[in-house]
Amino acid sequence: MSIASTPAPPYYAVIFTSLRTDGDNGYSAMAEAMVTHAARQPGFLGIESAREGLGITVSYWDSLDSIAAWKQNSAHLVAQQRGRDVWYEQFKVRICRVERDYEMTGPPQASPGQPL
Amino acid sequence: MSIASTPAPPYYAVIFTSLRTDGDNGYSAMAEAMVTHAARQPGFLGIESAREGLGITVSYWDSLDSIAAWKQNSAHLVAQQRGRDVWYEQFKVRICRVERDYEMTGPPQASPGQPL
Repeated sequence: MSIASTPAPPYYAVIFTSLRTDGDNGYSAMAEAMVTHAARQPGFLGIESAREGLGITVSYWDSLDSIAAWKQNSAHLVAQQRGRDVWYEQFKVRICRVERDYEMTGPPQASPGQPL
Repeated sequence: MSIASTPAPPYYAVIFTSLRTDGDNGYSAMAEAMVTHAARQPGFLGIESAREGLGITVSYWDSLDSIAAWKQNSAHLVAQQRGRDVWYEQFKVRICRVERDYEMTGPPQASPGQPL
């Protein structure tokens, strides 16, 4: 997975932080399907995800309306219910407005003005 | 690592997404030290981190001023420079205002109104 290419702010982010229950129980297949579904939604800008015990998935959207529509997507509603019932021990969702961003792209380089 | 216990919104989040270069090169020790430093900063509310190829660290703060102060912290400035020079192939930082949140705490349970 790569760093999401998002447009200039403002835009919106949904930070989904979770702790899983034991076993897969159909989670991996559903998680993959949900990324595919989300990417087809209007207003979807990108997604970033990592799990290391704690799981963090951040999806990016053009508006709060797009986030609300994705939350009500029928396939997503099924996944949300299964998440509550089976896959997650605990989770937290934070809806955010991205105010500004900056980045470093490309390989590391010596900083200007520093002795080499 | 656990899900950060944050107060009622609004508050602020810094989403730091990164791809590392090869090798540790002192990264792990510095990353650990930076979490300790950040937690002592005024306005720090919590931190969540996971790496799975892509690394995602989200730190939570009470204000943009607290985020700006942490960015200028002297130990953190050293780490930022080393990050640009050595540790990161690529990174993106997004500064966000958390507008609302919700969570599921405790173990999974059958949903009310659903047949058992």
